[in-house]
Amino acid sequence: MSKTSLKPSTFLSPVPVVMVSSGTMDKSNIMTIAWAGVINSEPPMLSVSIRKERLSHEIISESGKFVVNLVSEDLVKCTDFCGVKSGRDVDKFEQLKLTKEAAPITGVPAIGESPVWLECEVRRIEQLGSHDMFIAEIVGVHINDVILDEKGAADLEKAHLVTYSHGEYWGLGKYHGFFGYSIAGEEALKRRFRK
Amino acid sequence: MSKTSLKPSTFLSPVPVVMVSSGTMDKSNIMTIAWAGVINSEPPMLSVSIRKERLSHEIISESGKFVVNLVSEDLVKCTDFCGVKSGRDVDKFEQLKLTKEAAPITGVPAIGESPVWLECEVRRIEQLGSHDMFIAEIVGVHINDVILDEKGAADLEKAHLVTYSHGEYWGLGKYHGFFGYSIAGEEALKRRFRK
Repeated sequence: MSKTSLKPSTFLSPVPVVMVSSGTMDKSNIMTIAWAGVINSEPPMLSVSIRKERLSHEIISESGKFVVNLVSEDLVKCTDFCGVKSGRDVDKFEQLKLTKEAAPITGVPAIGESPVWLECEVRRIEQLGSHDMFIAEIVGVHINDVILDEKGAADLEKAHLVTYSHGEYWGLGKYHGFFGYSIAGEEALKRRFRK
Repeated sequence: MSKTSLKPSTFLSPVPVVMVSSGTMDKSNIMTIAWAGVINSEPPMLSVSIRKERLSHEIISESGKFVVNLVSEDLVKCTDFCGVKSGRDVDKFEQLKLTKEAAPITGVPAIGESPVWLECEVRRIEQLGSHDMFIAEIVGVHINDVILDEKGAADLEKAHLVTYSHGEYWGLGKYHGFFGYSIAGEEALKRRFRK
């Protein structure tokens, strides 16, 4: 198929969009990050990339810890606000009336309204240019009880998570299958294509 | 809201899901990667994490380059297959009848059916545990002409991209707004909330 070449840019899409909270219960901040991703399975690790001039860069460089708060559809407006306003000018928890709760393992302030918290501890920082990449281990996972299914397992569909594509926030749409479905047997297909 | 703690795991969601092609036009491979993300803006960089034992790990470690092929809804089954089968056992381009085309800058084989190619050159490799993270610069972006709008700009909505959440492939659903919409003026809101 005929293709047009564009100037090299960060065209990977869709990507995650999360609210990263940091600091202490007294002095906290929230920033929105789309430059985030899983980078390792054992131990579980993720990275978030932050511009050096951001307040959260300063806080996390010092404290070595942060919480990744996953974003549900009802949190998109707060997420956008946390992406365009600086914590130097406004207390985002207060302004957005978000519930500040200490995450159980690290004590980092997390957002009560977020359906999933990932508590992270920084292992290394890589300087890449405009951004520094914080390489972190996921040391705690906490999910809202309402997204548990009847067996006590996580049913993320109930979290109504949001993804970020080319500067836009989108909910999830059509279900296309599960990992391994292309070679799965009839029984697994029947059981898991219920959606 | 009451939360339940789970064992730490790679619970970030949704994440990208892409087909990474590598090698030469003669000897190529495709693997599916969800452990990918943008990590820097200037210069544009992304990372992909690959288990050491994978064929693509061997190929990309040697060649220092690869192509990230974005996944549209009609490529989900191919994507799943490339995630469960090894290139040591099967030629995935051949088996899936995918069109092999040399990417313009690096010459790496890319997937003709993919709506967007990101040509990448490896800058560093970080050992993290189960996976090695390939930190790469995006040196070329090429998009199908059918996803250009009337002004020649990319309209990614036309690409029908797919995201990956907790082991499942999902299309995009409801549009929730654009970056900055929470503080945008009336005119911008009217213009960009057309969807």
